[in-house]
Parts: sequence; C-alpha cells; structure tokens
Amino acid sequence: MMNEMNEIVEQIQKASKIAILPHVDPDGDCLGSSFAVSLALQKTGKKVQVILENDRPEMFHFLPGSYINYEAAEANDDYDTVICLDSGDLKRLGKRYVIFEKGSVTVNIDHHATNTRYAQYNYVDVNAAATGEIVYQFIHQLRIPICHDIATNLYVAISTDTGGFKYSNTTAKTHAVIAELMETGIPIADINRKIFDTMSLVKLKLTAAAIERIQFYHEGLICVIVLPNDLLCDLGVTEDDTEGLTGLAKSVQGVEVGVLIKEKEPGVIKVSFRSNEYIDVANIAASLGGGGHKRASGCTLNMNLDEAVDVVLKKLEEAFK
Amino acid sequence: MMNEMNEIVEQIQKASKIAILPHVDPDGDCLGSSFAVSLALQKTGKKVQVILENDRPEMFHFLPGSYINYEAAEANDDYDTVICLDSGDLKRLGKRYVIFEKGSVTVNIDHHATNTRYAQYNYVDVNAAATGEIVYQFIHQLRIPICHDIATNLYVAISTDTGGFKYSNTTAKTHAVIAELMETGIPIADINRKIFDTMSLVKLKLTAAAIERIQFYHEGLICVIVLPNDLLCDLGVTEDDTEGLTGLAKSVQGVEVGVLIKEKEPGVIKVSFRSNEYIDVANIAASLGGGGHKRASGCTLNMNLDEAVDVVLKKLEEAFK
Repeated sequence: MMNEMNEIVEQIQKASKIAILPHVDPDGDCLGSSFAVSLALQKTGKKVQVILENDRPEMFHFLPGSYINYEAAEANDDYDTVICLDSGDLKRLGKRYVIFEKGSVTVNIDHHATNTRYAQYNYVDVNAAATGEIVYQFIHQLRIPICHDIATNLYVAISTDTGGFKYSNTTAKTHAVIAELMETGIPIADINRKIFDTMSLVKLKLTAAAIERIQFYHEGLICVIVLPNDLLCDLGVTEDDTEGLTGLAKSVQGVEVGVLIKEKEPGVIKVSFRSNEYIDVANIAASLGGGGHKRASGCTLNMNLDEAVDVVLKKLEEAFK
Repeated sequence: MMNEMNEIVEQIQKASKIAILPHVDPDGDCLGSSFAVSLALQKTGKKVQVILENDRPEMFHFLPGSYINYEAAEANDDYDTVICLDSGDLKRLGKRYVIFEKGSVTVNIDHHATNTRYAQYNYVDVNAAATGEIVYQFIHQLRIPICHDIATNLYVAISTDTGGFKYSNTTAKTHAVIAELMETGIPIADINRKIFDTMSLVKLKLTAAAIERIQFYHEGLICVIVLPNDLLCDLGVTEDDTEGLTGLAKSVQGVEVGVLIKEKEPGVIKVSFRSNEYIDVANIAASLGGGGHKRASGCTLNMNLDEAVDVVLKKLEEAFK
C-alpha cells in the first residue's frame, strides 16, 4: 500500500493541470475529499478543478471549495492528470468518463471493497472508514499543511460516511485523524448541526406519518411501516426523504427487524429491511428477488401494495421460525 | 492540575475500601465513569462499590459493572475513601451524602464549571468534554491497563456527554482518547445503537404528535411546538420523553429559534428555547423569569396555556426586532 501511495504522490507532484472527479449524486465523503485535495494541491501552485456531474445537495453548500460543471470542463480539456475520488467503478463518473479517458495520467483513490481498479494508479484501502481518511494520509504524505478549510472538508467527509462515528467502519485511526483535524480549530458543533441536525419540513411530516403507520408483528419483534403512493404524493416526498425510515422502524425498543414497504408507483413496491442482532435480512431479500447484507437489504416487488405487504409478512414470519 | 491529580492518585493507592458515588438521576457519563473507576481499582485488589441512589435508565443496563443501592451501602458503612464522580455539588449525592460525610478521605472528580470543590481532594477540569475523559487520565496515571469493559464504560461516558461527539465541548483530545479506547476492540456500532438509536414507542408517538403541532412565525424563523397536558397524559409521556423536542423544532430548515411550550399541569407551563446562530435566548428566558445560555434556555410560566403561548410569542417577535 505504501508503495502505491508513493507512486501516486510522485505522479501528483509531476502534474500541472488536474481534474478531480467525485462520483455522480455526490455525498459528503466524495465532496469533502475532492475539495480537500483541490485546496491542498492549489497551495502547491497547481491548477486544479473539481468537476461535478450534478449539483451538490443543499446541506453541503457550506463546504469551502469551488467546482465547475461538466459542460465548463468539456470546453477546457487539457487536464494532464485526472483523480477519481470515492468512485468504485467508471459508471460512477457518468458523462465525465470522457474527461477521465483523455487524461494522460489517471488516479483512483477509494475505500469501497467493490472497486474495480480502473485507473493507471489505484489506491484502494477497504479498511478506511471514508475516502476522506485516505485523503488525509495523502495530504500528509505530500507534506502540505492541513488548514482550516481542508480540515472542514475532511471532517465532513469522514463524519458523514461513518454516520457521525457511529457505524462499524469507524476505527481507532478514524478518531485519531479527526483529533488531528480538530487541532485546526474547526467549529464542529456548527458543522454537525448543518449536516446532521437540519431537516426539511417535508421530511419531518413524512416522519410523523411514518410513525403513525407503524405496525408490529411477531410479538413486537417485527416493525413495519407501509407508505402508500398517494401519501408520498400528498406530502411531496422525494426519494431522499424516505431514506432513514427503515432505520426508524428498526430503532423502536424491542424490535429485531425494521421494514419499510413503499409504493413507489402503483404496482412497483420497494421494500427495505434492517435487522439489529440475529435475523439475516439478506436471505429474506434474496428470497424475494433482491439482495444486500445480513443487517440491511432490499427488494422490489411488482404487485399491488396489499399483496406486497402479505408476501413480505409471510417471509418475515418464516425467518423467525 | 497535575499536582492535584497526583495527590488523588496517592490517596487512591492508599485506600482499601472505596465507595464510588455517581450523581442522582444517573446519566451515561456518571455511570460509565463510575463503573470504569470501580473495574480499574478492583484489578488492583481493592474493595470498591458503586452506590446508586436511583436505578439506572434501561438504556444503560448493558454497561459492564455492578452496583449496590443506598440501603445496602448504609448497612455497610466502613468505606475509608469516597469518590464522587460528575457531581457539581453535594446536593447531587442525595441521601448518599451520609456516606460521603463518613469518609475519612473524600475525592471529587468532575468537569462542571459550577463545581463547588466540596471534597478534601478536588480535581475539576472544565475543559474536559466529560468526566469519563478525566477518568481515562486517572486510570492511565494509576498505570492500570484499560480492558474491554473499562473502555466500553468510558466510551459511553464520553459519547453521551458530547451528543455523539457533535457538541462544542468535544475537543481533539476527546477524539484522541476515543481512539485509544477503540484499540481494545469494543463493538462501537452495537454500543451506539443501544445508546442513540433505540426509542420507546411512547417517545416516537410523542415525536409524531409534536411534528403535527409545529407552527411557524416570523417568516419561518420561529418554530413553536405546543403540547397540552391532555395530550401528554393520553400518550403516557414522562419528563424524559419530551427532552429533545425543542431541538427538533430548532432543526427545521430555515429556523433560527425552536420553542417547546409544555403544559406540565394546568396553570404550570414549561417553556424551553433553543437558537441556532444569532438570537440570544438567555435574554428571552430571563425576561420571563427564567434563565440559561445564549443558545439554550428555559422558564416556567404560571398561567394558562393560551396565555403562555401569547406571552412567549410576543417576547419572541420582540427579539427579532
């Protein structure tokens, strides 16, 4: 790994005009990592541009760093080095694949286990909690001092990908890196409020509606939330808003499996499962044509909502036998 | 500070039977700190007992460590050393003040700025995020290795008092200590699920009811939740359940001040205020006979609910002038 890092550092030191490509539908880790790399390399006198496919989610507007969109980058196609951050494969680059393809030197820095090592130079550390954790090491290796703005970006990258240091990917090293970042005096209470404790009214109303619809089965071990399409339309809910509701079902005291059954459109039912300790929900989802992990999985059922609820409940009851 | 720590370490090394007193209505910090100290000192062959005034909240039942209640301790009054943890003053000891008074050596370890230095030996570090952070240093100073169980207790102590490392009391040192604790391999995802992501159904139903009652004023800058007493009775809500709802009001996108107006009983209205960036809610609460900090304050109004809402709204509108 150290060898791969040194090779990339060498390539970056030789580069003069660098394109940084976060993945499509950018999240905190890829945005924070990208801005951190670009701010760091700009300090060394290099021309660096972060190129986004889509706009950033509003919650990340406060991140220090600038970017251009795909169209502006296309008109400007003399990047000698392209660095992809937090992207497991080339599909995650979207239209910006064209920019990647034209790069004389291509670099891939990521932490996803599924990474396809698609660049000339690849650094994939699956033990890193976030790409931001790896970027911290790179900036250190490049001997560029970590300023307040770089620290803010890396703090957001790492905290969002670890659910605020709560998920199992968080390691001792994660906290050690955060300790270093905090030495710059970043206002972490403000940052955390912006990324974790700000909710749209739509999302809040949806949460209330979901709680009102909670149903328990199997002596309270199964908690199910069913969201009919007309409710979602009435509230003006987007795909993002329903994220986290399966976790809400799972979080009720005494529950082992939380299930969200969402009528995306009539006849198309998205189901997601989360479990706490012992039920393998990957199996349940697989038996319904879906997939995922032991503790988080999902499937799509092409049937009406009532039928879907029956099918899912039957599978759940079987899983507890 | 180092001198005070060394003196206490010396006293602890001389002690043979030690009583550990967390504060009344125990929280994660005082319980985790107390169990950590008792497990550590037991390793050195000392007799140590954690003595609780009330039972632990259910969410902390998983903490490794044992305790006795006040009555059992009373019958057993030959403690030579008494260590108070996380208690700002002697009132926080409740009935167990009797045990404190009988101690030949008394020690007070805390991080509250209001600490009255009531013991023979006092170590009060107001820059520590949690008493657990100080206890970590003490155990280190005593050269007792931090095992899995001690690390679990200290992790809970520190993470609960920092709101999961999100509050402004969290420092670089806090994360450095957590990094050390995690080297023992504690299952942080499980721990965080138990302390942060488990909710009673009553609390969830109350949250839904609170969201349904959200009202905005002053172009969405003020978000108010009013909870009438009959609603609280219907839902079977306890005092603890309403904690966090002012934060919910404050978290709505675009809101500067979140307010919870709770009819504790007819004629007794508890009001709490939280602000995000610029409104000084200490002033607002003070003008209503209450108090607190710039960003979090409260007051009690002895009037009927409708009157209270009017009074509070008038004060809020004035604050925005």
